[in-house]
Amino acid sequence: MRIWHGGDLDEARRLFPQAPEPWIDLSTGINPIAYPVPLLPASLFERLPSPADHRDLEAAAREAYGANDAAMVVAAPGTQVLISLIPHLRSRSRVAILGPTYAEHAYAWRNAGHDVDEVPSPDRLDSANVAVVVNPNNPDGRLLDRETLLRLAEHLRPQGGWLVVDEAFADFDAGECLVPVLPANAVVLRSFGKTYGLAGLRIGFAVAPEPIAARLRSALGPWAVSGPALEAGRKALRDREWLEATRADRTVDARRLDALLSSVSDATLRGTILYRLLESSSAGRLFRALGEHGIWVRRFQYSPHLLRFGLPRDEAEWRRLEAVLTRFSLS
Amino acid sequence: MRIWHGGDLDEARRLFPQAPEPWIDLSTGINPIAYPVPLLPASLFERLPSPADHRDLEAAAREAYGANDAAMVVAAPGTQVLISLIPHLRSRSRVAILGPTYAEHAYAWRNAGHDVDEVPSPDRLDSANVAVVVNPNNPDGRLLDRETLLRLAEHLRPQGGWLVVDEAFADFDAGECLVPVLPANAVVLRSFGKTYGLAGLRIGFAVAPEPIAARLRSALGPWAVSGPALEAGRKALRDREWLEATRADRTVDARRLDALLSSVSDATLRGTILYRLLESSSAGRLFRALGEHGIWVRRFQYSPHLLRFGLPRDEAEWRRLEAVLTRFSLS
Repeated sequence: MRIWHGGDLDEARRLFPQAPEPWIDLSTGINPIAYPVPLLPASLFERLPSPADHRDLEAAAREAYGANDAAMVVAAPGTQVLISLIPHLRSRSRVAILGPTYAEHAYAWRNAGHDVDEVPSPDRLDSANVAVVVNPNNPDGRLLDRETLLRLAEHLRPQGGWLVVDEAFADFDAGECLVPVLPANAVVLRSFGKTYGLAGLRIGFAVAPEPIAARLRSALGPWAVSGPALEAGRKALRDREWLEATRADRTVDARRLDALLSSVSDATLRGTILYRLLESSSAGRLFRALGEHGIWVRRFQYSPHLLRFGLPRDEAEWRRLEAVLTRFSLS
Repeated sequence: MRIWHGGDLDEARRLFPQAPEPWIDLSTGINPIAYPVPLLPASLFERLPSPADHRDLEAAAREAYGANDAAMVVAAPGTQVLISLIPHLRSRSRVAILGPTYAEHAYAWRNAGHDVDEVPSPDRLDSANVAVVVNPNNPDGRLLDRETLLRLAEHLRPQGGWLVVDEAFADFDAGECLVPVLPANAVVLRSFGKTYGLAGLRIGFAVAPEPIAARLRSALGPWAVSGPALEAGRKALRDREWLEATRADRTVDARRLDALLSSVSDATLRGTILYRLLESSSAGRLFRALGEHGIWVRRFQYSPHLLRFGLPRDEAEWRRLEAVLTRFSLS
């Protein structure tokens, strides 16, 4: 079965061929206001990315995420390729994934020959060889606290077990992040594109104890990250002021979105600052109403009652969304 | 042991701290005159790369390389990550690599747990489960003909063996390329950055029969290639006129380089249009003479008598190279 993802407007246009253009894409959890891409000299496109620049990107990530040592930070062309690679570093294992969650984790572990269970509760993670947690969770924002994760890692450790924590949406609320207290058998994934609104550049990181980091590094080989990505990435990760400002702005946006979505009948709302998950018995009808008006949101194969909304990028988008929701709530 | 690569001017500056800037980097086989990068709208950096654009890049590669079916073409962020990934698709195998050659192949297969032999002659490839050939070879330009490769693939096939052919430098001389006649147990790698002078963008391709292509595709996951790379890549691959013009220009450059290098005592010259391999008993002395004058060429861990020269990019670089070589040949 094909995995559904956000961000595919071709699919939106196929489903709603009559919808007005331009589409508003609220189907991802990507910051709609991007970090301004610095001037990119031609040499960044032409030359092989310099090993020193690559190390400097990893150093910038170390500072941003609070890792103890740059040798623990591995830069990749997006976290997706890390999600796909990590299962290849272990022999056949029992893998428990706290779900429902981002579907590529289960897909990648199964694809590499492991036995995968999706479990609904954290208590059910500790009987596996590998436990996978997306924290905060996508799409519902469920957050496990640091102590629970540390206990879980401790529990898995004697039998050589790993804890994999995908902190793709942790940048705006770093309280429970595992990076600064990383156990010796944990791998943490950090996404760059979502927070900085630069998903097209492809930058992601694994933070792992050195033996695992070294294996990931050699599985990716040199020059895994493009020259333009190295340049923009290290500048953005060191710009703490921009991060604070965008956090404040997106928090306001998330509240505004909640206020709009709460007009939907029997709505419950969860999520993170970059996306809100609406649960409602009228989610299916709302998906169609939005689609017919050229607004693309994320639906889920496992539940017809869920829709995930990213944040609109400007007043024009807010107004189109508001108009559809008002009409829908009155209908 | 760390693998030496071209393109690392930091290493050049460490070895020759007194050399004049700017360095002339002749240490890679990358076309010094790049394909002009098209205008890249901000959305390419901001949005997730579109699946349709990704498929279109693969379609452009199919046309450029003469593959029978776009489903056989897998785009990746550079061929290096494919070199690293492919060994993970097989259980422990005996791997024979025709060498000496690009060192990352042996490294990747060993790193994934296989038994690797570097063999000096094509006859010695057929007793393995996996045969790896770089064609034309890097650094010496040795070219196996299509019939030899097809026979080898045929020989490996009954026991489930694979033939991996790295055609990184095949674009300018496609006569023996395996892509149009791809056997069902062969994987061909094609590099984009070298021919188009855009190594910083990170684009590479595997061409493989569908079962292998599908496994590579899922091991990379979606969005492996960046938005800017998708845009520039598909435009460049469809520009046959540019390719013909650059082929003609680089052929002239390669002859000019040979004429210069033949002044070195007991020189023999081999290679491809994008690099020339000098074999000479004075290679070590020449490496130092060039380095002291800020010209960085590629030396080899396995032989002190070899130096590989990429092509100078403009008259100023030609003149600096010429000056050092003239003085060296007179000394």
